[in-house]
Amino acid sequence: MIYLDNAATTKPSALALKRAEIYNSENFFNPSALYHVGLLAAKEIKVAKENVLRYLGCPNYEVIFTSCGSESDNLAVFGAVKRGVFITSAGEHSAIYKSFLELKNRGKEIYFAPLNPDGAVNVNSLCELVRTHKADFVSVMHVNNETGAINDVNAIGKKLKEINKNIIFHVDGVQAYGKLPFRLSSAIDMYSVSAHKINALKGTGALIKRKNLNVSPIIFGGGQENGVRSGTENVFGIKVFDFASEEHFSSLKDNFDKVSTFNKIFREKLNPDIFTIISSETASPYILCVSASGIRGEVLMHSIEEQGIIVGNGSACSSKNRYSRVIEACGYDAQILDGVIRISFSQENTIEEIEKAVEIVNQTAEKLKRIMK
Amino acid sequence: MIYLDNAATTKPSALALKRAEIYNSENFFNPSALYHVGLLAAKEIKVAKENVLRYLGCPNYEVIFTSCGSESDNLAVFGAVKRGVFITSAGEHSAIYKSFLELKNRGKEIYFAPLNPDGAVNVNSLCELVRTHKADFVSVMHVNNETGAINDVNAIGKKLKEINKNIIFHVDGVQAYGKLPFRLSSAIDMYSVSAHKINALKGTGALIKRKNLNVSPIIFGGGQENGVRSGTENVFGIKVFDFASEEHFSSLKDNFDKVSTFNKIFREKLNPDIFTIISSETASPYILCVSASGIRGEVLMHSIEEQGIIVGNGSACSSKNRYSRVIEACGYDAQILDGVIRISFSQENTIEEIEKAVEIVNQTAEKLKRIMK
Repeated sequence: MIYLDNAATTKPSALALKRAEIYNSENFFNPSALYHVGLLAAKEIKVAKENVLRYLGCPNYEVIFTSCGSESDNLAVFGAVKRGVFITSAGEHSAIYKSFLELKNRGKEIYFAPLNPDGAVNVNSLCELVRTHKADFVSVMHVNNETGAINDVNAIGKKLKEINKNIIFHVDGVQAYGKLPFRLSSAIDMYSVSAHKINALKGTGALIKRKNLNVSPIIFGGGQENGVRSGTENVFGIKVFDFASEEHFSSLKDNFDKVSTFNKIFREKLNPDIFTIISSETASPYILCVSASGIRGEVLMHSIEEQGIIVGNGSACSSKNRYSRVIEACGYDAQILDGVIRISFSQENTIEEIEKAVEIVNQTAEKLKRIMK
Repeated sequence: MIYLDNAATTKPSALALKRAEIYNSENFFNPSALYHVGLLAAKEIKVAKENVLRYLGCPNYEVIFTSCGSESDNLAVFGAVKRGVFITSAGEHSAIYKSFLELKNRGKEIYFAPLNPDGAVNVNSLCELVRTHKADFVSVMHVNNETGAINDVNAIGKKLKEINKNIIFHVDGVQAYGKLPFRLSSAIDMYSVSAHKINALKGTGALIKRKNLNVSPIIFGGGQENGVRSGTENVFGIKVFDFASEEHFSSLKDNFDKVSTFNKIFREKLNPDIFTIISSETASPYILCVSASGIRGEVLMHSIEEQGIIVGNGSACSSKNRYSRVIEACGYDAQILDGVIRISFSQENTIEEIEKAVEIVNQTAEKLKRIMK
């Protein structure tokens, strides 16, 4: 099998799992316990937090561990819920999109900024919306999970703060963390990440936030994570995340170059008579969104799966709608929308895999086209 | 080391971890993905849910997997937030207690029913409160996490439904699931459980709920778990929970008898001149709450830790307050409150460990008493 749906989830790192094993055997203790071995577990969490801040170059921030990227996004949105006017882009992951719809249910004002054709937010329109509606909370994703479009979130944050210095700016960094070179600037107040997108485990995420920023909890209880997120800390998940982060950040550039090569091979070899490439050249190399004209993406996906190639059709998280809400917001018509598949790479793929995969994708698409004629 | 703080967390089962390993290697896929191997992961979650319902004898219920017991409790409380009058006991875990305080912040009416001296809710007072204030939501824990007191939640639910057949009754079953023989009756609408209390992993919990009961999400997004809990499903955590549940339910009676013996040894051998036993004879045998007169529980805990015995001082989740809110609500005075330690057993403890532990606890307490004179 050749797995090319790494934006949906990644295979956990065997090394990170091995290194973290001890937190399920000798050091399985409750980090909130007051005895020595409990405090040792708590210290391991502290180290993991310091590491995240070091990787992102923001020592004055703090890390709240959560159960997933979606929870991190929800915590950012609802934690700031005392505010009144919320703006995001039309390209966000459903964890932000659906949270915004819920804000509306709760009587808040919400607005969606339009996208450029590549899936990046249109920054002028965003700023205009923020100005017009006097927004006090904005959320923009770092890397679009469907097209790979990169939003220059530090620059966007700077512009937003120029409009309103008290604005809260949240960034969903789930598809960027550990993959793109990035330093989190003071223009960003909160940044969400997810462990299972970087070869760690499902069930762990984090919200990185400005130290003096008050965030109300969405889960109340024992007061873990400085009172912002209650529930016994998932030490094993946090340490797998810590170790997988270490692996990613120590070879970030090598990985980036490697997947850039994979991405380039696909772009060059996909049959241009069939495939429209939606992802721009400046997108994250980890994600390549394409559309097969005249073939339903889901049919293509299943046909190539029979030959051992796994790709995504849009975001697995919102796979219940016929068309991707996000690709639609990029301005494409029904025919393009119908044929969308998402190919997403890992540093663990090989050139041989990629060459083989693109060949099978082409052959299968050509065959499906012939059948449908 | 002799670990006797199993109500705080338990050591993950090596066998359950081993059996679930495959979900971090061959079958690490996103269960929301539409391709075959994703569907296989989704099926594994479905099996885990069916098993939970089988163990609890409630095939017509459904399971929502969450990230922990605290999240399950919060989901139950805030999922029913359209209701107006909320009642719980004074003995609840902080995941319920703090959620209730938050309900109050949000303008809801909340009431706390008093406890009997053993930590069980006073059922007459509870029913009286429900009648007087026309409550429409009640939450009562199954086993008190500090004293082990068992609330007969099926019987309580029946009484509540007789007062108001539309009342929503939630039970925090975190310290009962897999430990007490129990079938979930239709008098209970929702039941919270936690994986790491039964030798599975931190980071997994579940809310078992009546099928036709509407619960609003607290985490919005991709619509996983029937739209009630978004976020990529933690397949590995869920399967470790599934396998650990199987281990617990297949030897529930043996385990119960074993820890009953441990509990009995402690009760019989603890020096009665120093220790007051707070847990009643009818409490869950897994938890034994005692107080050392004239010695601070924390001091005793640290002193015996130096000799390799780990016990808790009250609930680790609320270890920041001097006195336990719950033991205080049982009606004890400051001297008793000061000396509380919680000894909590596992089926993995041995008689030799228990004999040794009680000896060390006695000797240490006697020594501390002499020093303080």
